[in-house]
Amino acid sequence: MGRVTARRRVIRIRNGAVNTRPDTLVTEEPLEIRLNGKPLAITMRTPGDDFALAAGFLVSEGVLGDAAELANIVYCAGATSPDGGGNTYNVVDVRLAPGVPVPDVSLERNVYTTSSCGLCGKASLDAVRTTARWPLSDGPAPLRLDPGLLAELPGRLRSAQKVFDRTGGLHGAALFAPDGELLDVREDVGRHNAVDKLVGRALREGLLPLAGTVLLVSGRASFELAQKAVMAGIPVLAAVSAPSSLAVDLAAETGMTLVGFLRGASMNVYAGEERVVLP
Amino acid sequence: MGRVTARRRVIRIRNGAVNTRPDTLVTEEPLEIRLNGKPLAITMRTPGDDFALAAGFLVSEGVLGDAAELANIVYCAGATSPDGGGNTYNVVDVRLAPGVPVPDVSLERNVYTTSSCGLCGKASLDAVRTTARWPLSDGPAPLRLDPGLLAELPGRLRSAQKVFDRTGGLHGAALFAPDGELLDVREDVGRHNAVDKLVGRALREGLLPLAGTVLLVSGRASFELAQKAVMAGIPVLAAVSAPSSLAVDLAAETGMTLVGFLRGASMNVYAGEERVVLP
Repeated sequence: MGRVTARRRVIRIRNGAVNTRPDTLVTEEPLEIRLNGKPLAITMRTPGDDFALAAGFLVSEGVLGDAAELANIVYCAGATSPDGGGNTYNVVDVRLAPGVPVPDVSLERNVYTTSSCGLCGKASLDAVRTTARWPLSDGPAPLRLDPGLLAELPGRLRSAQKVFDRTGGLHGAALFAPDGELLDVREDVGRHNAVDKLVGRALREGLLPLAGTVLLVSGRASFELAQKAVMAGIPVLAAVSAPSSLAVDLAAETGMTLVGFLRGASMNVYAGEERVVLP
Repeated sequence: MGRVTARRRVIRIRNGAVNTRPDTLVTEEPLEIRLNGKPLAITMRTPGDDFALAAGFLVSEGVLGDAAELANIVYCAGATSPDGGGNTYNVVDVRLAPGVPVPDVSLERNVYTTSSCGLCGKASLDAVRTTARWPLSDGPAPLRLDPGLLAELPGRLRSAQKVFDRTGGLHGAALFAPDGELLDVREDVGRHNAVDKLVGRALREGLLPLAGTVLLVSGRASFELAQKAVMAGIPVLAAVSAPSSLAVDLAAETGMTLVGFLRGASMNVYAGEERVVLP
């Protein structure tokens, strides 16, 4: 956990009193993701699960969908710090399996930006829908979620967020089974990274598509997070805070269930209500 | 305000009771930013202040620093929706003034990613420091902020956030004078966009560098937000929530004051405490 948090001196002011002490902060460092040796993207992330983050990012971009397409992931040996130190562990190279075509991807051509003109929300939705490898699936049985069960999920995420308690600076993302069992939880200074880490771990374990699962995020539900859920085959996205218009539209178009403002016994269902047992 | 919010049907579950009604959501749409006609970046943003957003983005990237360097900003006339509709107003073209060199910028070469190898936090800090056009300045008189005044700023931001009250989905960023006067406030589904909008408006009004001002953000203080403050010449960054390690490091290296967890009469000063009147 050494690199996940960092200690810095802080001056605390509390109701007119001042004290100086060390404080625990969430670590933020750049990660460069390379694909077959070619620089592809840089994200500011919390170190840890870097291989999962890189793999999950490539799932979101439509490059990876199966563990067999992945040859390996390594930290670049030549990526040493400028002051002559050791490996920074901030550059990872994802090698695709032999025969897997290297897609023409770059940061300028995200999955949701393939529309060369007339850029609009509808084009973004279409791009995700046509890039997704699988339809969203409930799994072996139709998914029917009780609101009482959904209401318990934020508490389970919170309990599992180890670093948040110490820093207050991490977004959390958790994956749940239909019965509410916590399958995995990841934290990161960037919420998109937390989801990529979840998805990347699932890819490497051969679990994609994540049929019948529920993804819970600690903050708001943006289009980007909804897109990541779709690309991983997750049929239910729940957020503690508000969704955006485009996230709701993407959910409606892809058949995803989107729950927002999940707080206590209250929640809003914006799309896919057939998977929620309404009282 | 038509495009800032959108109405969608929502099923509300409240303690076992269900009702269906229209809900107001924050609008999220893609914006493509072009520089002299060449696509440069795409950001998911809340429509409105798009020209300011584009200008502020280019300040953050080190391309613009003075209103005179900007010829004009236009919506691309050819950017119509795929279904044959009118202009999407989602593509803007920023034209630099004659003689201003068009920098070689792309999303793969952000200001904080110019280090070709050995990518690390220190390199990111160096990149910002060497790209910034101005040292951070207090303005005509040394900036000395009373904690009591700082404590009032989140309330002033909250009061000025018109759309948040209706959607709960917007990040806010506000600029304050040394005496606590609210100079400007912007909202966006992305917090970096809210700051870019503030900075872009200031650029176009000839106000850069923003010496002697305080930037308050409604959420956490990441490296990216600290970078934007540095690039705009803002000497004080305050956040309602936690900062990251790299944000604190950047503040310390550039001489910026960084206040976090600004809540009621409590706050943490992580760097630049000489601008805060300690009790």
